[in-house]
Amino acid sequence: MRLLLANPNTSPSITGLMERAARATASPGTDIKAVTAKFGGAVIGSRTEMVIGDFASLSLLAEEAPGCDAVIVAAALDSGLRAAKEMLQVPVLGLTEAAIHMACLCGGRFGLVVTSARTSTIMREMIAGYGLSSRLAGIRWIGRDPAAIYGDPEGSADAIAEAARRLAEEDLADSIVLIGAIMAGVPDRIRDAVPVPVIEGVSAGVVLCEGMARLGLRKARAGSFAAPSGRKVTGLDPALEALLRG
Amino acid sequence: MRLLLANPNTSPSITGLMERAARATASPGTDIKAVTAKFGGAVIGSRTEMVIGDFASLSLLAEEAPGCDAVIVAAALDSGLRAAKEMLQVPVLGLTEAAIHMACLCGGRFGLVVTSARTSTIMREMIAGYGLSSRLAGIRWIGRDPAAIYGDPEGSADAIAEAARRLAEEDLADSIVLIGAIMAGVPDRIRDAVPVPVIEGVSAGVVLCEGMARLGLRKARAGSFAAPSGRKVTGLDPALEALLRG
Amino acid sequence: MRLLLANPNTSPSITGLMERAARATASPGTDIKAVTAKFGGAVIGSRTEMVIGDFASLSLLAEEAPGCDAVIVAAALDSGLRAAKEMLQVPVLGLTEAAIHMACLCGGRFGLVVTSARTSTIMREMIAGYGLSSRLAGIRWIGRDPAAIYGDPEGSADAIAEAARRLAEEDLADSIVLIGAIMAGVPDRIRDAVPVPVIEGVSAGVVLCEGMARLGLRKARAGSFAAPSGRKVTGLDPALEALLRG
Amino acid sequence: MRLLLANPNTSPSITGLMERAARATASPGTDIKAVTAKFGGAVIGSRTEMVIGDFASLSLLAEEAPGCDAVIVAAALDSGLRAAKEMLQVPVLGLTEAAIHMACLCGGRFGLVVTSARTSTIMREMIAGYGLSSRLAGIRWIGRDPAAIYGDPEGSADAIAEAARRLAEEDLADSIVLIGAIMAGVPDRIRDAVPVPVIEGVSAGVVLCEGMARLGLRKARAGSFAAPSGRKVTGLDPALEALLRG
Amino acid sequence: MRLLLANPNTSPSITGLMERAARATASPGTDIKAVTAKFGGAVIGSRTEMVIGDFASLSLLAEEAPGCDAVIVAAALDSGLRAAKEMLQVPVLGLTEAAIHMACLCGGRFGLVVTSARTSTIMREMIAGYGLSSRLAGIRWIGRDPAAIYGDPEGSADAIAEAARRLAEEDLADSIVLIGAIMAGVPDRIRDAVPVPVIEGVSAGVVLCEGMARLGLRKARAGSFAAPSGRKVTGLDPALEALLRG
Amino acid sequence: MRLLLANPNTSPSITGLMERAARATASPGTDIKAVTAKFGGAVIGSRTEMVIGDFASLSLLAEEAPGCDAVIVAAALDSGLRAAKEMLQVPVLGLTEAAIHMACLCGGRFGLVVTSARTSTIMREMIAGYGLSSRLAGIRWIGRDPAAIYGDPEGSADAIAEAARRLAEEDLADSIVLIGAIMAGVPDRIRDAVPVPVIEGVSAGVVLCEGMARLGLRKARAGSFAAPSGRKVTGLDPALEALLRG
Repeated sequence: MRLLLANPNTSPSITGLMERAARATASPGTDIKAVTAKFGGAVIGSRTEMVIGDFASLSLLAEEAPGCDAVIVAAALDSGLRAAKEMLQVPVLGLTEAAIHMACLCGGRFGLVVTSARTSTIMREMIAGYGLSSRLAGIRWIGRDPAAIYGDPEGSADAIAEAARRLAEEDLADSIVLIGAIMAGVPDRIRDAVPVPVIEGVSAGVVLCEGMARLGLRKARAGSFAAPSGRKVTGLDPALEALLRG
Repeated sequence: MRLLLANPNTSPSITGLMERAARATASPGTDIKAVTAKFGGAVIGSRTEMVIGDFASLSLLAEEAPGCDAVIVAAALDSGLRAAKEMLQVPVLGLTEAAIHMACLCGGRFGLVVTSARTSTIMREMIAGYGLSSRLAGIRWIGRDPAAIYGDPEGSADAIAEAARRLAEEDLADSIVLIGAIMAGVPDRIRDAVPVPVIEGVSAGVVLCEGMARLGLRKARAGSFAAPSGRKVTGLDPALEALLRG
Repeated sequence: MRLLLANPNTSPSITGLMERAARATASPGTDIKAVTAKFGGAVIGSRTEMVIGDFASLSLLAEEAPGCDAVIVAAALDSGLRAAKEMLQVPVLGLTEAAIHMACLCGGRFGLVVTSARTSTIMREMIAGYGLSSRLAGIRWIGRDPAAIYGDPEGSADAIAEAARRLAEEDLADSIVLIGAIMAGVPDRIRDAVPVPVIEGVSAGVVLCEGMARLGLRKARAGSFAAPSGRKVTGLDPALEALLRG
Repeated sequence: MRLLLANPNTSPSITGLMERAARATASPGTDIKAVTAKFGGAVIGSRTEMVIGDFASLSLLAEEAPGCDAVIVAAALDSGLRAAKEMLQVPVLGLTEAAIHMACLCGGRFGLVVTSARTSTIMREMIAGYGLSSRLAGIRWIGRDPAAIYGDPEGSADAIAEAARRLAEEDLADSIVLIGAIMAGVPDRIRDAVPVPVIEGVSAGVVLCEGMARLGLRKARAGSFAAPSGRKVTGLDPALEALLRG
Repeated sequence: MRLLLANPNTSPSITGLMERAARATASPGTDIKAVTAKFGGAVIGSRTEMVIGDFASLSLLAEEAPGCDAVIVAAALDSGLRAAKEMLQVPVLGLTEAAIHMACLCGGRFGLVVTSARTSTIMREMIAGYGLSSRLAGIRWIGRDPAAIYGDPEGSADAIAEAARRLAEEDLADSIVLIGAIMAGVPDRIRDAVPVPVIEGVSAGVVLCEGMARLGLRKARAGSFAAPSGRKVTGLDPALEALLRG
Repeated sequence: MRLLLANPNTSPSITGLMERAARATASPGTDIKAVTAKFGGAVIGSRTEMVIGDFASLSLLAEEAPGCDAVIVAAALDSGLRAAKEMLQVPVLGLTEAAIHMACLCGGRFGLVVTSARTSTIMREMIAGYGLSSRLAGIRWIGRDPAAIYGDPEGSADAIAEAARRLAEEDLADSIVLIGAIMAGVPDRIRDAVPVPVIEGVSAGVVLCEGMARLGLRKARAGSFAAPSGRKVTGLDPALEALLRG
């Protein structure tokens, strides 16, 4: 199968980081195609950038998804996820969506490690949107932005492990989810220091996309996830317009 | 005060309809400035168009909001609402947000009249996102799209009144919210036929924006609604980029 | 319009404090009529006084509301609010109801500043009753009763600001609601010290009542907020009995 | 033990009906003292009468509860219940509170039979206030007011049984709660026709009060149910004022 | 009446402890029959032992319940409770179920004292299963296992009282529930040190069972608690098999 | 990898049905080992059989899981699931757990098709236990027991498709989950007749187990899913006792 890893941000280095993690996890028969948004934010760090990322995500997917068997929207905020599930004919998962469902399958409640307090609030809203608030044990932030984590992976791993450990011990989290593209590959670094399973979205997304593709679920032909068609739109990229006109 | 009524869709006729309703409701000292998106969808009828509308909304607001004292995002899906609250220095309300809070202030539970089953699902998610699921008595759809309602206001009013009446009598709704830009002015047509208060978003948004502006609430300087600054973005409209760079 | 500000407690000094705040906020065309309960508690500080305040509120409204276009029940516990919405033909809002909906319109979650731990528990129940628990970031109390706040406005403002600041920084509240009649006018004193919007009920109630009155919503003729009539009651004030007999 | 059965309404015939049911259920050592409110509504059928009933309940209890070991607030709306729990030194239960907890102890979800649609809405709010919404399978009303039920017990029993049967079969209720003072004694009439346990509040309240009294739980000395004292109140019945002054 | 107190664990000393507490609480006419499981765990301290305890509970009840009028499943995890309610013709209550409903009847929110962090997580899930999460103020653990508490009742009482006091003062719990068989009799030791009512399951279960038996509720003949019959089972104790074959 | 498919019921024919579905879905490198419980119920159709199934499940897993890389508890009620996740060192999924999480990954809300009204109630409780009530669009039953479905696959497929279609069209379910072992292979039969994705647990469980095994998540060493050890148990199968003694 061919799996699209679509970074809705404009940071190729982060795309590369995720691509390596995806290849390390994928089954032998899975071909990873990693792409990066051509416009928008380098990193999503605000609600405004969320909206831009949602749109950049759809523009990118409209162009790059054809020919792929499944798609990972590769950003913490699951940019444009519900729309992408609607618009495309193949399974689409978000990093956070994939990771928290994998955490649920471990049992009990999960704790989230995020970069900042600001992200914490937005993440809490997202978890509620997925209907999983009752399985959230807590959220802790490490106070480092993605660039700082990228530049100091060792020191950051210590900070992440400490937040994870406190989620397990003080908030009684039964598993830990590391939120964000920058967390690709981090679970391997901190597993010894954290007494419960540690999950991040790229690897979770790869195995879940492989699974969904294998199931061969039929695309919705009715309801709120049926693909739109015959819509009147103007001023968008040709690929996106074509999808909406059907 | 100057109130921006920003239609994130590309339908000037609907903007005109809303503008008339807004002027009919506004206080003497309120100046209404109505604007229409320059790209995107004519109507938001799918999750994909929601994402486009969110982005079109922010682009429009970045250009048109300066100089205004409050903003109504004038579409049923409250396009880009949370981001606009974050990005701008003045109060921003969405049509649905304004209408359901006004309904809450009437007491009890509200029922929603929407155009289609598809909108019903998305609206249920939105109400949950506002934390008001427990005050939702039910959702009923009339099976007409906005163009059909625009073209047949009398016949549509009958269908809307029937749905509203059933929400009150069968679902025990204590008030009725008519969802969407196309509902501007409709409450006056159906009030006699519906035994509970009937609310739509344009008029609710106008009076709530006037009230918020009068309170002079201070813009958040911290937390998840503080305005972003110093963000790296590319490929956007200059006004939007300028706001994010701060 | 004529707006009734009805204090269900027997403290004219607090009524005066609220009246000044209401006049400072009201539109030019709004006439404020402030009245004080003739029996009951000086302050509501227990569940027992809540019940007394609910009844005192209805007795006061039955006598004073005729001729008014909207009503604010001017106490933290929103005394008799749902009954007043049912009984009267005009919009009725409570201090806390008005303030928390205004906070919701700012976006995100709100934090509450209350006077005592005891009030904290009761307020948590009230927020749940309004269906807004998921938008509550936290409650903090300052450990001063209304009389102490009234007697030391400067020192109290510091304590209130400190509680508000911690709600924003530690509980990640996106706005702050100051609970109680005694908080009228306090937001102006603490805005510089608190990094998110600060709201109290008198000013919020005034602008929301003005907005509701302008909308001209039709009074419910059916459902759980239709006015009662033909009820058999004895031993009440004549005005209240007359309303129930219809 | 001495058990006070306090009807906060002014209908002695209903008090008598409940008293007979209470005596039929009580243990040999339990002495039932049944009293009726001296002012207020004959029946609570609106939100306004709820408030009056809450106050009438406290006035009645302040005078009649001394010397009793437990109290049943004997009306569907559990008039003044939380305040009475706070104000008195002995256990206090409401009819609906007692019945729904007894239903929970039967397992699964309960269905409610009420008199009218209007009561249905208010009852839904009450169940939410008790935190038990997730155990509510449904509410059905029979469209007869208490006077009609009192005047036609046989015909009413058929209507009640039909509502109960549909709750069990269509809404999958695992038990049935009959709401209101008028339902005292009704379970015996309909048990054969309903395939799940049928519960009403007077008998449930009697056995639960007996149990609480036997446990000898200590009255709260702190928190939101500690008895108030030193409160400034005016214009109330002497007994109620004395309790609040402490 | 004859009340079965069935310990699903294999610890006769704990059964004895509970039996003494049950006799101290029971009405004169209540005969307590205390029995202990013949296989399974000495104490339930893990999810695996929960499953074993559920099964041991049913095996024990199938053999011992005939001839009894009500049953207490006498372990913190309410072993096999819903199945026992289904399988038997008489009321069945669990220790935790009984205690938390008794706490609800005291009003407000309850706090839980448990032995360990591990139990805390499982107990939180149980409270959610009973639909009572919104009435849970907090959970605190004392870090002693049942054997340690049994061996040092005085020192343990101090630790329990401290946890209870903090639940009341810091978490604003309106009542305290002590979780587990080992807590039988403990409320009497700590009442003076805790400012809100203190409840444990054996005594709560006794009075609630007495009350349910007195009500004479009819066993469900339909729905999810009707007794199974005609089921094909093999390899179980004869008594349990007989019940399932009907 | 080696995947254990463990049927906690005593019906080898159903095990065979599931084994064929599992093999049809599994990756080339996955070896399926299908086993059947040696005691308990032929089918789980009551709460009592649930408890027996939970225990039979653990007994079976203690003996058969060693040497396997992941486990599917292959019954609708996810027998003993949380305990198995705790007890074993490898991932364990239940049929219903797997299917509903796969449905969530399709987006929106799912509808459930079950065999009977009785199962409907129990399934609603299970979905709540997984924290996913807000994603449940509805439950419909077909009124046929597993034996009837097994004996008439064609006619049953029509009944199942009809229930699924109504869930999509009337309850607005965005995907359909077929509940129970007997549904293995059924999605292929009804996909053309149902306009949204159709999911059942065996195939969902296989791909999710493969994914979890590939991720190599570390087993919890602390918290409520750490494996128990040093527990005192008697009278169990040697394999189960050995696991608990550690």
